[in-house]
Amino acid sequence: MEKWRAADRLLKFSSRFASGTKLTCTIINYDHTHPLVSECCFFPIPFYCCKSKQGKYFYSVATTVHRNPLFSIISPDDISYFKTLLGERGVVQDALALDAANTDWMGKYRGSSKLLLQPKNTEEVSQILKYCNSRCLAVVPQGGNTGLVGGSVPVFDEVIINVGLMRNILSFDKVIVSGVLVCEAGCILENLISFLDDEGFIMPLDLGAKGSCQIGGNVSTNAGGLRLLRYGSLHGSVLGLEAVLANGTVLDMLGTLRKDNTGYDLKHLFIGSEGSLGIVTKVSILTPPKLSSVNIAFLACEDYTSCQKLLLEAKKKLGGILSAFEFLDSDAMSLVSSTTFLGTENHGQEVIKDKHGQDFTSIDLRALPLEFWYSYASGSIFMENLEAFLLHSVESGLVANGVLAQDINQASSFWHIREGLPEALMKAGAVYKYDLSLPLEKMYDLVEEMRVQIGPAAKVVAYGHLGDGNLHLNISAPAYDDNILAKIEPFVYEWTSKNRGSISAEHGLGLMKAAKIHYSKSPETVRLMIDFDYCVFELLPDTSCLDDNHSIICLCLSA
Amino acid sequence: MEKWRAADRLLKFSSRFASGTKLTCTIINYDHTHPLVSECCFFPIPFYCCKSKQGKYFYSVATTVHRNPLFSIISPDDISYFKTLLGERGVVQDALALDAANTDWMGKYRGSSKLLLQPKNTEEVSQILKYCNSRCLAVVPQGGNTGLVGGSVPVFDEVIINVGLMRNILSFDKVIVSGVLVCEAGCILENLISFLDDEGFIMPLDLGAKGSCQIGGNVSTNAGGLRLLRYGSLHGSVLGLEAVLANGTVLDMLGTLRKDNTGYDLKHLFIGSEGSLGIVTKVSILTPPKLSSVNIAFLACEDYTSCQKLLLEAKKKLGGILSAFEFLDSDAMSLVSSTTFLGTENHGQEVIKDKHGQDFTSIDLRALPLEFWYSYASGSIFMENLEAFLLHSVESGLVANGVLAQDINQASSFWHIREGLPEALMKAGAVYKYDLSLPLEKMYDLVEEMRVQIGPAAKVVAYGHLGDGNLHLNISAPAYDDNILAKIEPFVYEWTSKNRGSISAEHGLGLMKAAKIHYSKSPETVRLMIDFDYCVFELLPDTSCLDDNHSIICLCLSA
Repeated sequence: MEKWRAADRLLKFSSRFASGTKLTCTIINYDHTHPLVSECCFFPIPFYCCKSKQGKYFYSVATTVHRNPLFSIISPDDISYFKTLLGERGVVQDALALDAANTDWMGKYRGSSKLLLQPKNTEEVSQILKYCNSRCLAVVPQGGNTGLVGGSVPVFDEVIINVGLMRNILSFDKVIVSGVLVCEAGCILENLISFLDDEGFIMPLDLGAKGSCQIGGNVSTNAGGLRLLRYGSLHGSVLGLEAVLANGTVLDMLGTLRKDNTGYDLKHLFIGSEGSLGIVTKVSILTPPKLSSVNIAFLACEDYTSCQKLLLEAKKKLGGILSAFEFLDSDAMSLVSSTTFLGTENHGQEVIKDKHGQDFTSIDLRALPLEFWYSYASGSIFMENLEAFLLHSVESGLVANGVLAQDINQASSFWHIREGLPEALMKAGAVYKYDLSLPLEKMYDLVEEMRVQIGPAAKVVAYGHLGDGNLHLNISAPAYDDNILAKIEPFVYEWTSKNRGSISAEHGLGLMKAAKIHYSKSPETVRLMIDFDYCVFELLPDTSCLDDNHSIICLCLSA
Repeated sequence: MEKWRAADRLLKFSSRFASGTKLTCTIINYDHTHPLVSECCFFPIPFYCCKSKQGKYFYSVATTVHRNPLFSIISPDDISYFKTLLGERGVVQDALALDAANTDWMGKYRGSSKLLLQPKNTEEVSQILKYCNSRCLAVVPQGGNTGLVGGSVPVFDEVIINVGLMRNILSFDKVIVSGVLVCEAGCILENLISFLDDEGFIMPLDLGAKGSCQIGGNVSTNAGGLRLLRYGSLHGSVLGLEAVLANGTVLDMLGTLRKDNTGYDLKHLFIGSEGSLGIVTKVSILTPPKLSSVNIAFLACEDYTSCQKLLLEAKKKLGGILSAFEFLDSDAMSLVSSTTFLGTENHGQEVIKDKHGQDFTSIDLRALPLEFWYSYASGSIFMENLEAFLLHSVESGLVANGVLAQDINQASSFWHIREGLPEALMKAGAVYKYDLSLPLEKMYDLVEEMRVQIGPAAKVVAYGHLGDGNLHLNISAPAYDDNILAKIEPFVYEWTSKNRGSISAEHGLGLMKAAKIHYSKSPETVRLMIDFDYCVFELLPDTSCLDDNHSIICLCLSA
């Protein structure tokens, strides 16, 4: 089965005004409502539409996104230059290839770029950007193009810079014990995982899109995924990176040290900025040693409160061996079991005993009643400890039922249930996807309120990374329908903001949520971001979204 | 015994030019060699001196640091304003109190501030900065004043803003399982550790200075300490913070979410910027649950290579239960055992068996021969696993000897050996301290080369956080001597730079290493930092170090 490409959304990047020239307010201020001039235009921000190839609108209030007329159109001379620089192979104008690169995985976002460039090294990336900067050509960086928020594809005719040919592993120091991997941005995550497996190490990052997504995109979008609970975010794991700025300047921040307190730690700006500040070309990342054993349990709790309590118990009792704590609700379970292999295979004998010390009988996952909750607890090393924890959890009533994988195949099949959800949703029809961080105690309140809000017209399916407070809220309907969307937005964003959540836990802003940053960030913070863009990184408002009054779009759509 | 105050160095902060006014190149450029105008003045940078109260110079090439004449002098009107704002208690002009606040813990750096302000909340911090900004009064933020690089004290007459009265714990959510602590910047680390202990949680950060240092300073300096190996740096643990900018703007980034990918993650700029960009006023930090048991072994290896191998084995075999992996060399061991309680107490029965299955006899740590290496491995939860690992390490020859703590008192005494080293060095005479990150395989080469370089005039004492690649290199001499210093610097910095190390792993730059940033950071990166300072944060070159041609000083001494 083709891998689901989910959490990697690489790199969107606006072209710059003039090579080496510091933009001043005067130069930028061709737009009378530019934020540097008019500070009051932050709110409200108009929604705007993006018309997909299916002709569906994904935003409820549609205003048109304009191409920034300051950017140039590609000329034959440009093509000649790039061919000289990159060779014929590095300059792609083939319609089929361009079609794929212009379209995101969901089929929601679609650009019309006529040129895809494939640099082979940092120097070529630098030369490309320097040239585009001097010619005022807009660019969009792209990696595995697995994003879910329209951040990895052009919106208009941006030059696509795909770093997929930059896929060398540059060093790995298992001999000298630190486990630091240095590689180019185009390395596919799954290849890195395989490489490390042979060396006795693992990536601190794993996600469903691993077969396609690239490490440069992972870093640029601060991808979260399945191991964040244990190994933390990329802000902790990434030790250094190399990035190329808009004017071609190569920023060497490719340290391999765990500790370096000399000045501002600028690499963190690039982690999660979605390519808006520069193209990440190399990454240095700390990888933990592979553990001697890994196991996974698939558990059912009677309600959300039990899930929360189980998480706390797992953190306390399993300490450092808890790697992941996922969850999916009964609607998610129904969906995935009706569309995947579930029910056709035996997914493991259970080893958990019930309150009376008796073994459970074989569990038919499909038969679990509604309002049951399923949690994964992936442990390692100490099987006995894990079993004792599970037994105690059953005896104390936190866990109503469950299975513990007996071998690697069963473990894989358990993960497959969780990872198969996005694809199952795609197969089920239209899906409105929201990726939210919420305080744990309130997370499921939103799901229940959304069910009331939306009524019988669509199904609300919830799953996510419970251990990280990250809810993937999906509204599944037979077809896209503006009436349904009007019931979801802005309700979902307002609810999240009111509860101090984040409207994007791990997917990023992209095109989808660019104008919605104010739901999660204060005006002062957004203001600083804009200052960074204009004053330090010399960014022009993004080609794809120059509008009359969209200061935040200027900022965020470049992200 | 008074706690050693080591790793917390809070907050140094330059005043700003004019309230609400964006500085332009023209305004800043009163200095003809200002970096925005003259780009070629980065290197070489003149060394400059700092004369301590003992009259010792700490830099080999002395040029004078000038006070920036653009900053105002405190007037009686200013004092009146602050008394109205803060009350009498918040405005300290007492000579004794000022003397303490003007002097760093090492007694190396000494300012002449006449005013110490003690705000009680964020709003007061904001008002103070807004006023200082409008009056062009230079300020230096201060926390526990435990820094080792002259970053937490004024150099001239800056207004000291001490956040020590802001010491409320604002929330802790053990009930809802996430373990997120939100508190004010002035909370003393040890108090937070105690608070969490009662709640069943621990701080992800621990260091020798915990009795004095404050969490705001810890975050502002990205303090490392003893648990970094296990819990990672503060870039991973800090979920959010609130900071006040120079013009009084309060930046609310006080999220409590593990994941939030909405725009640039600006809090990371404040973590480790040593107070140069703003005063951290509140912190939100992820704390792990307290583990059921903790243990510590004190091991001796025959050489540095064995130490490295032991670290790899420990990482592989102990997985998530390894919390710390410290080391000290035989010279460090000799020093600490001659100046502390060692040898007067029984430090634990050893439980490790030798190659023939026999118990070791009681170990006299002082008697271990030179070139023995001592490593701490602090584990938890699974005693059996730890014992098996230690036994295997002895059998395979990696460990030559060792003890495992039998109770909490023994564990404390083991840590006390390690934590007592800085104080032992202070007692032994003059000490030149270097805090370096180095590739593990080369770390001890520097120590050995330094011994050759420096000859018999001084003793080279090495210890540090081996698990993090962080060497604390100390040159201990009977008295400060410029001839000794000339043998150390720039050798130590050049050696570190050549091997792609960092000249400050965890202590920060402060005054001591401000001009040396180029040993660890590329010119392009430093350039960006300067752009941030001037273009975004509107910083004036620091009051304390305006000089003829010190672009980097302008930047870093504000740090």
